Amino acid sequence: MSDPNDLAAFLGQCWQHLGRGVADAKSPARYPTLATVSPDGRPELRTVALRRADVADAVLEVHTDIATPKVAAIKSNPWASFHVWVPRSDLQIRAVGNVDIITGPEVDADWERVPLASRVSYGTEPVPGAPIGHAFDYQKPATRDRFAVLRCHLQQLDLVHLGEQHRRAVFVRADGWAGQWVAP
Amino acid sequence: MSDPNDLAAFLGQCWQHLGRGVADAKSPARYPTLATVSPDGRPELRTVALRRADVADAVLEVHTDIATPKVAAIKSNPWASFHVWVPRSDLQIRAVGNVDIITGPEVDADWERVPLASRVSYGTEPVPGAPIGHAFDYQKPATRDRFAVLRCHLQQLDLVHLGEQHRRAVFVRADGWAGQWVAP
Repeated sequence: MSDPNDLAAFLGQCWQHLGRGVADAKSPARYPTLATVSPDGRPELRTVALRRADVADAVLEVHTDIATPKVAAIKSNPWASFHVWVPRSDLQIRAVGNVDIITGPEVDADWERVPLASRVSYGTEPVPGAPIGHAFDYQKPATRDRFAVLRCHLQQLDLVHLGEQHRRAVFVRADGWAGQWVAP
Repeated sequence: MSDPNDLAAFLGQCWQHLGRGVADAKSPARYPTLATVSPDGRPELRTVALRRADVADAVLEVHTDIATPKVAAIKSNPWASFHVWVPRSDLQIRAVGNVDIITGPEVDADWERVPLASRVSYGTEPVPGAPIGHAFDYQKPATRDRFAVLRCHLQQLDLVHLGEQHRRAVFVRADGWAGQWVAP
């Protein structure tokens, strides 16, 4: 086993999993759970697909339909948290940051890369969450103007490794991600 | 396939998974992701173990060390959300409710049922999240007085089934859990 006190290695392992999540649809970090706070102050969470993980800028990105409640939540409170559990590594990754909602020409290139079959995820009518009479009373056109990128500027990463003895460390942007061991 | 418009059957499927989560450590609902809102308004989330799922009262319970940040979060904002993804059923379960923090004699029976080997989850010194010099600079005594039950009185269940056509329904306590189809 490598040095259990190596904070940089622990952080590197986290970013390796996040990068794999973007590249490999079958990897554990592909589908994090994303938490936001609704305008009435309740925590909301849902599965999302991880689309970008940039270690240099400490940024995570997901795509969304701007008509979903998570966009309304982020407009009222920009803080969001990601949660990933990596079974084979017994590793819990938690990432907290503030989110920019990006639409318009700036995300043209992202939209172009969305497979045609997936574009129907953006534009459901009526809008997601609207009451309907029967289970299938909705349409899924592909609506370019409903597509947005949620860019989360991470401020903190909290890693827990469940081993014979657990290890937990917190890394923050404010000190250049140096990291600090904390009691698990 | 059974009637896709049967709301009661959809809800029944959800509670079946939740019940299985309590009974079977290998089932998908055993380890939900629990979201709370921290005192400074940020969403927090972590894996928890589901300990009780009561369909009659619409209650979910988990156990916790009272020194963890989730207890501080719930004291400042009692709303919590659970998230479960059931792979084989392509079902996302989201449950929102208000949480009571229960300690003292009322949870004696729960504590007695916690296996001896698991009791060290309650009482870590220093407290969870406290900075430590090295990865393993902590102790895990079993401390009865740090044990608490988080009892979540569900107010809403939101179910999404990813099928050839997706189905989504929202059920609320206020109308006796009758349910309403919504656009996915």
